Amino acid sequence: MALSETDLIKRYFSRCGAPRADVLLGVGDDAALLQPPPDSQLVAAIDSLVEDVHFPAGSPPRSIGHRALAVNLSDLAAMGAQPAWALLALALPRADESWLADFSAGLDALARGHGVALVGGDTTGGKLCVTVQILGFVPPGAALTRSGGRPGDAVFVSGTTGDSAAGLMLEQSRLTVADAAQARWLLDRFRYPTPRVALGLALRGRASACIDVSDGLLGDCGRLAEASGCGVVLDYEALAVSEALRAAVGEERARELALTGGEDYELCFSVPEADLAAFAAQCPAAQFGWRRIGVLTAQPGASIRRGGSVMQFSHRGFDHFAAG
Amino acid sequence: MALSETDLIKRYFSRCGAPRADVLLGVGDDAALLQPPPDSQLVAAIDSLVEDVHFPAGSPPRSIGHRALAVNLSDLAAMGAQPAWALLALALPRADESWLADFSAGLDALARGHGVALVGGDTTGGKLCVTVQILGFVPPGAALTRSGGRPGDAVFVSGTTGDSAAGLMLEQSRLTVADAAQARWLLDRFRYPTPRVALGLALRGRASACIDVSDGLLGDCGRLAEASGCGVVLDYEALAVSEALRAAVGEERARELALTGGEDYELCFSVPEADLAAFAAQCPAAQFGWRRIGVLTAQPGASIRRGGSVMQFSHRGFDHFAAG
Repeated sequence: MALSETDLIKRYFSRCGAPRADVLLGVGDDAALLQPPPDSQLVAAIDSLVEDVHFPAGSPPRSIGHRALAVNLSDLAAMGAQPAWALLALALPRADESWLADFSAGLDALARGHGVALVGGDTTGGKLCVTVQILGFVPPGAALTRSGGRPGDAVFVSGTTGDSAAGLMLEQSRLTVADAAQARWLLDRFRYPTPRVALGLALRGRASACIDVSDGLLGDCGRLAEASGCGVVLDYEALAVSEALRAAVGEERARELALTGGEDYELCFSVPEADLAAFAAQCPAAQFGWRRIGVLTAQPGASIRRGGSVMQFSHRGFDHFAAG
Repeated sequence: MALSETDLIKRYFSRCGAPRADVLLGVGDDAALLQPPPDSQLVAAIDSLVEDVHFPAGSPPRSIGHRALAVNLSDLAAMGAQPAWALLALALPRADESWLADFSAGLDALARGHGVALVGGDTTGGKLCVTVQILGFVPPGAALTRSGGRPGDAVFVSGTTGDSAAGLMLEQSRLTVADAAQARWLLDRFRYPTPRVALGLALRGRASACIDVSDGLLGDCGRLAEASGCGVVLDYEALAVSEALRAAVGEERARELALTGGEDYELCFSVPEADLAAFAAQCPAAQFGWRRIGVLTAQPGASIRRGGSVMQFSHRGFDHFAAG
């Protein structure tokens, strides 16, 4: 017997995520009723994952549940916000219980890890499309934005970039990697990205600008620079490339993917030169895994310094409606 | 030349809805930054419209933009909340400028009418799917819920129900109506539903329970009763049926649609018998267009009184994953 919409919600989503005392009414009424903390500002983001656009058909449902929340947590991380509540709109072709169990487990585990409660949602028939909306908080004036960078500020990225693009190629059987452990690691970088929430919180009051890297480092870094009224020069040799990626695709291709790969969900941020020592002391690289990769410039545009020469780079990252 | 994602957002969504001073950062950063009013509770809902599920392919884009927001405003109305901010996740097959202009105009007009700002969103390729997430406020303790009804409370509905179901049949050419003005009115009841936000606000402190009628009056009224630990008996003769609907489909079918039609976005609510006089005086029917249609009962279940007899009614409204 097929599952009714009400039973589906009750079974898989009514106790999803962390319990929170500030959820006065969660899943089950017309809307959620929530108690924001006093003297705080609200941070809100929404992001969809569409089958065949953001993940291949047949992707593991646990990964889809994880990623749908992760991409939103990453947006909050980029604002320096503490995540609190999420809502889920789920279109799916049929109420497949095994799929739903794995999907909600992936969502639940990541939500609990970040203290996020799932407080409401909507389920409907349709082609698989997962939209998560997330809410979090910052103290007044503490939010990070894309626009606070100034020429001379050092540019950093967390983790390594390009791994997720290689993971997607593995998922789609467009790449083979001899070493099984490295293949698994790259695949998991695509399937289970780690939103850098703790780093975002640590960057409050320290980063001059911040953006999450979802459409390729170079493009997103360029967006941060543009919003800050600057340009950016990235140092090719300094790019953060993993051993696994280098082993899988070679040095040159690894750096190309690190610049343009997309779906990294790392943070790219700028820190004023005068604050660098304090930043490094208070947000140690050993703990937060960041790397200095470039500098904001007065001259607009995004470019790459390699050896002695500077290349302009045309690829501005992934655009869902790019001119053909 | 096709429109880029950035230009699409800038052109159609960066100034959509009402300007609000409490939007500190709107469309364009990683997330929106919002200032909730002091000493208030937050109300949050999310709802999707999927092509071929919630509207036929080829529906007017202005209507889709209107309805995507209207269904969410209706959820907030059912909670007695004052709407403030909305986020939009839009999957669409291609960046058709004429479609986008009409879609955003429909969203914009309704948002402005309710003082709602569009503060963020996400656009992606994919089959047409529109998800709106809405945020609003209530004073602490003032939210309406489904669960506060008690046996003996009178049950009301706003407006008329069933019109939208007939409008959808007209949209799908499954119904013909001789009178062009009546046909247009019914069609517009489907295409441009009116969320009852002002009524929801007026019901604060007066209604014991409230729900929005989206899946058919009988089913939703049954949900209100169930959440309140009650049953409900509706009076067949008292149902709120429009002249246009009666003329289009006849008396019997009109009442059936009024009970089970779906997509009405009216409010169904209960008021304690002792408070009825004050309610009628302070929320006049002439202003808010409500009608008394039944009573909550101690005995569970939803039934209909017609003449001297009471019918149990099996149809519990639309269920996206109903057992086949």
